[in-house]
Amino acid sequence: MENMVESREWYLAEYCPEGVPTSDHLKLRTVSRSLADDSIPDNHLAVETLLLSVDPYLRRTITGTIDGLYMPQHEINQVLKRVFAIVRVIRSKDSKYTEGDILLNGNGYVAEYSIVPSSDIMRKIDPANGISLSDYLGTLGVAGFAAWLGIEVIGDPKPGSHVFISAASGAVGMSAGQLAKIRGCRVIGSTGSDDKVNLIKEEFGYDDGFNYNAESDFDAALSKYFPDGIDVYLDNVGGKMLEAVLNHVNKYARIPLCGMISQYNQVWTEREGIRNLLNMVGKEVRMEGFMLDSYWDRFGDFAKDMEIYLQEGKIKSKNKINIGIDCFLESLNSLFSSSNIGKVVVQVKA
Amino acid sequence: MENMVESREWYLAEYCPEGVPTSDHLKLRTVSRSLADDSIPDNHLAVETLLLSVDPYLRRTITGTIDGLYMPQHEINQVLKRVFAIVRVIRSKDSKYTEGDILLNGNGYVAEYSIVPSSDIMRKIDPANGISLSDYLGTLGVAGFAAWLGIEVIGDPKPGSHVFISAASGAVGMSAGQLAKIRGCRVIGSTGSDDKVNLIKEEFGYDDGFNYNAESDFDAALSKYFPDGIDVYLDNVGGKMLEAVLNHVNKYARIPLCGMISQYNQVWTEREGIRNLLNMVGKEVRMEGFMLDSYWDRFGDFAKDMEIYLQEGKIKSKNKINIGIDCFLESLNSLFSSSNIGKVVVQVKA
Repeated sequence: MENMVESREWYLAEYCPEGVPTSDHLKLRTVSRSLADDSIPDNHLAVETLLLSVDPYLRRTITGTIDGLYMPQHEINQVLKRVFAIVRVIRSKDSKYTEGDILLNGNGYVAEYSIVPSSDIMRKIDPANGISLSDYLGTLGVAGFAAWLGIEVIGDPKPGSHVFISAASGAVGMSAGQLAKIRGCRVIGSTGSDDKVNLIKEEFGYDDGFNYNAESDFDAALSKYFPDGIDVYLDNVGGKMLEAVLNHVNKYARIPLCGMISQYNQVWTEREGIRNLLNMVGKEVRMEGFMLDSYWDRFGDFAKDMEIYLQEGKIKSKNKINIGIDCFLESLNSLFSSSNIGKVVVQVKA
Repeated sequence: MENMVESREWYLAEYCPEGVPTSDHLKLRTVSRSLADDSIPDNHLAVETLLLSVDPYLRRTITGTIDGLYMPQHEINQVLKRVFAIVRVIRSKDSKYTEGDILLNGNGYVAEYSIVPSSDIMRKIDPANGISLSDYLGTLGVAGFAAWLGIEVIGDPKPGSHVFISAASGAVGMSAGQLAKIRGCRVIGSTGSDDKVNLIKEEFGYDDGFNYNAESDFDAALSKYFPDGIDVYLDNVGGKMLEAVLNHVNKYARIPLCGMISQYNQVWTEREGIRNLLNMVGKEVRMEGFMLDSYWDRFGDFAKDMEIYLQEGKIKSKNKINIGIDCFLESLNSLFSSSNIGKVVVQVKA
């Protein structure tokens, strides 16, 4: 490896308070980076990025306002960071890691090459264990972890509970539905096309599902699919779907709020208002937001469970792999267009 | 006592889906009622009503639709019931009670005389113990119990927590604020007049308060009174105040939903939409509705705590006593007009 490399990276040129980010906001540039031994501090690693995780929360780090997810905002002209990434070690200044190791970085850069503190590494990956690298960003990454927290920790459905999951063919939804099925629940999902409805039933084992783009009346759809009401709703979308669900909740229903992707491109005053929260009183509903940052101490438990489920085929995954770091912006925006199935990742290097 | 009495009672003439109920909906009539021995089944009591508890939930039992609080609806032409009442025993067919006993009925009728199952009796009252009868309907009744559940069980603030209580001079708010103070919290209330702001500070020990009718911008008010954010919000009103609070919540804030009085006179599609629920995700807020019916097993714990607080002067109460069963409708509507302080009761008989 050369000591000096050309590294392409995405940086924030301008905040994007509303709408879909464009190449005015996020730009690609090439920088020269020294990977020489004396450029790497102790307990740091020089790494090359193999795969990048593309997740909705990133949208809320470039708005210039912190409301909603309350995430720190990226700085103008700085490379995008705080993404999950699969990296390969080029040079190591930490005895725990050696050149060629494949690692999961929980705090990576959207860049081809970077120097990172080894404390950001979540785990070492054995590429021979039968799990694809992209699954470490999806089912075994932030999305799978969010699904696991939503179902296992916060939603906590009982066997036979009626569970509803929005964005059911997305990165979180696909795992969440399967985890609820493992618990013995009846699981219904909503997703954005008839093909995706088939997929969540045939591939992910959902009991049924509906295409929210084909339903003009969510209330009617939920009446049909939940004649006995909803016990747990893992909300990934917010807005009108959440409002409709609140008309169908059972006594003591739980609503883990994983995120509200339908509301990420709006400033808060333009978001859809939920008019029927009073139902939470009568039905004694518990609604609870959660962020992964508060639960990293559970990541090991999650990874152990989920790795076994994957290897035993009890949980299946689908990943949308976009090739080349140049397609990062397009990949991010695809999250908001209902155009994907499963986990979206960018493959930076094979 | 005569065997036959004339008993005035309020009955439902017509459902009132929205707006304030009028004498078209609730009407007073006089019926003849036999209190003769053979009119009283075993384990029942003939009672005369001394005091009636006037509570907001009653509004949601005469709408003709169950959404919101999901309470059973009164039947047309039937006497209003399911209210807390202080009654005096006239004749008893239960050996636990005897003529002249003063009892708290948790399932009473809005009537001067009635025959009730003794299983509806919550407790026997000792009129000589220094607690006024009206306090058994307020601080020691449903309102105080709701306050206790909201603070002690669901909100669970820590010493030093920043607690906000809406409708702070109302029946629930007055007790809730004092319970939070006993826990060592900083407590701020909102209420409907400057006089009431003074009252909650001087009488109920709130650290501060504001008049929501004088604030055009709830967001600005909360910025002023909660520079360090809100840890627990006991929501009694819903609507715009709840939305404003969600812009000021701290990490892991809790929002017990006790009721939403600002929304009780609207059908759900006309209620104010809450646009910023996404803040619940970033701040990992837990919002939880509760109804007393799920917690009757805790009523004894509550009553024991609260009775001691009252007797020791650690919790003070104020009651608005309206005289005569004929003013029941007016008393109910007064709950929605911000015209009262403390607990509203109707004194039927001295």
